[in-house]
Amino acid sequence: MEKVVAGIDIGGTNTRIGLVNKEGKVLVDSNIATDKYPQVDDYISAIYNSIEILTKNPDLPSVELVGIGIGAPNANYHTGSIEKAVNLPWQDVPLADSLGKRYPNINIKVTNDANAVAIAEMVYGNARKLKDFVVITLGTGLGSGIVANGELIYGHDGLAGEVGHITAVPNGRHCNCGRCGCLETYVSAPGIKRTVFELLATQTIGSSLRNASFNDLTAKDIHAAALNGDHIALKAFEITGEILGRALADVVAFSSPAAIFIFGGLAEAKEMILQPAKDSMEKYLINCFKNKVAILPSALGNKDAGIVGGASLIWKDYSIA
Amino acid sequence: MEKVVAGIDIGGTNTRIGLVNKEGKVLVDSNIATDKYPQVDDYISAIYNSIEILTKNPDLPSVELVGIGIGAPNANYHTGSIEKAVNLPWQDVPLADSLGKRYPNINIKVTNDANAVAIAEMVYGNARKLKDFVVITLGTGLGSGIVANGELIYGHDGLAGEVGHITAVPNGRHCNCGRCGCLETYVSAPGIKRTVFELLATQTIGSSLRNASFNDLTAKDIHAAALNGDHIALKAFEITGEILGRALADVVAFSSPAAIFIFGGLAEAKEMILQPAKDSMEKYLINCFKNKVAILPSALGNKDAGIVGGASLIWKDYSIA
Repeated sequence: MEKVVAGIDIGGTNTRIGLVNKEGKVLVDSNIATDKYPQVDDYISAIYNSIEILTKNPDLPSVELVGIGIGAPNANYHTGSIEKAVNLPWQDVPLADSLGKRYPNINIKVTNDANAVAIAEMVYGNARKLKDFVVITLGTGLGSGIVANGELIYGHDGLAGEVGHITAVPNGRHCNCGRCGCLETYVSAPGIKRTVFELLATQTIGSSLRNASFNDLTAKDIHAAALNGDHIALKAFEITGEILGRALADVVAFSSPAAIFIFGGLAEAKEMILQPAKDSMEKYLINCFKNKVAILPSALGNKDAGIVGGASLIWKDYSIA
Repeated sequence: MEKVVAGIDIGGTNTRIGLVNKEGKVLVDSNIATDKYPQVDDYISAIYNSIEILTKNPDLPSVELVGIGIGAPNANYHTGSIEKAVNLPWQDVPLADSLGKRYPNINIKVTNDANAVAIAEMVYGNARKLKDFVVITLGTGLGSGIVANGELIYGHDGLAGEVGHITAVPNGRHCNCGRCGCLETYVSAPGIKRTVFELLATQTIGSSLRNASFNDLTAKDIHAAALNGDHIALKAFEITGEILGRALADVVAFSSPAAIFIFGGLAEAKEMILQPAKDSMEKYLINCFKNKVAILPSALGNKDAGIVGGASLIWKDYSIA
């Protein structure tokens, strides 16, 4: 019987569930619509049913479920719960407790999505030999997973790694968190859109982006326009990379990682955002850190990273044991 | 025979050396003038001689030297060396190697002064039960020691914890490191002096500090003036605390410590700087971190903290073993 872990990637719209073997391969997976379950108990039942169906999939050789690992927004590693979520149908979800009642003898671990990606990077990705690195995830927000001394930093309350909410610009853009100037209001999919709209307002140069409404425009559109040479789009990537790089210089001053991995939709623009980020980080680094910290794209495919990330929470300890 | 560790606190002017027992008590100590040794080999010999004299002190019961622990500016834990020092007579000092030739069978550890204070706080101070905390030292610069998962963060190159050089004000004050806007240009003994001079320039209110030259004025003078109700001095402490608190909110977003300990000369102003720092940190924290991170004065006396800090590098492992 092949040992497998159920890796679960909880997002505001979709929850993806897959069975992952020790090598990090997703053997089979399924999807449930997060926002179709106003009652959290029904949602937990749906996750349970999905795992049961997957483990009994007739196309698989028989498998033994050895753990469940979950990456979710606002998830607390210490309590195993989602706490004060803002983009989910429920504020608080005791994931480990609820699933633990159905799987009393199985190891269940929960952390936020960026931490899960960081652990996957450590177990299966480009950080396999590193003890000190950082993962930045660029999506609807900016998430981060920080590894030091070979261990993820969870903090005393299980909530560490909120680099998206360090102050990038004092008294800057309003953030959903209630503060102003948070890094993720500049460096994220909505962040680059806000930068585009600022540029459309301050500059007179022509741009295909002048035809899009704020609600319609996506980071993908901005990337496509930049690939077509659109000056506003190119400038927006440059500014976004510049602000990211300056913040990464602060991250380096803090924990001195050997490498910083950039993951998520915006990272697909590759050098268009990574190059200005590198240039800016080097500019702002103090001398002792210059020219020794790599900024690299994540080795994990966007598609399965969440599932593999969740599963790696369990497989990480199997590797060590 | 009582086991002792030689704790060494290297500063630009003085090098203090003491024998410290396992309980963190300094049994005897001595001092050598750092800046009287243009040749680094002579300086190493002077340290060696001091240790030999201390261990043979006739007032002591006979002692066994079990280790040497050193806190020094720009010291790299991994290499055991001072690297690219700016305030010492020599740029690079291979401390562990040089002393290791004289003490081949003794454990020798080196780290920067703020890290040494953090470890002393963990072994002997207020952080004894904490696995996640931060120490900020306020002196000529702003140093930091960051502990996560019960371990000091050294970073991949041994140089982590440069919170003094995160950007507090984009394009702000010039820093000795060559950058602009570093936190320590605002929050340190020279930093508060610069704030006083800014206030003297922008405000018209009377102040005893208007009689002092920039070169003569010290942080102690500013503290004394504040205790006398001098408005400029009081305002300078308030501004310094406010900028410190905002930066600490970023530190919390990063590693979510249970407590932040403030150490060093400026911290002697106690609530005069700690209260505005607390208020400002709470203002800038995202909701999930509000009202749960303590800002506290260090439990270590300023006088012996450097010696005890150095020694705790060695005693820390004895405690665990």
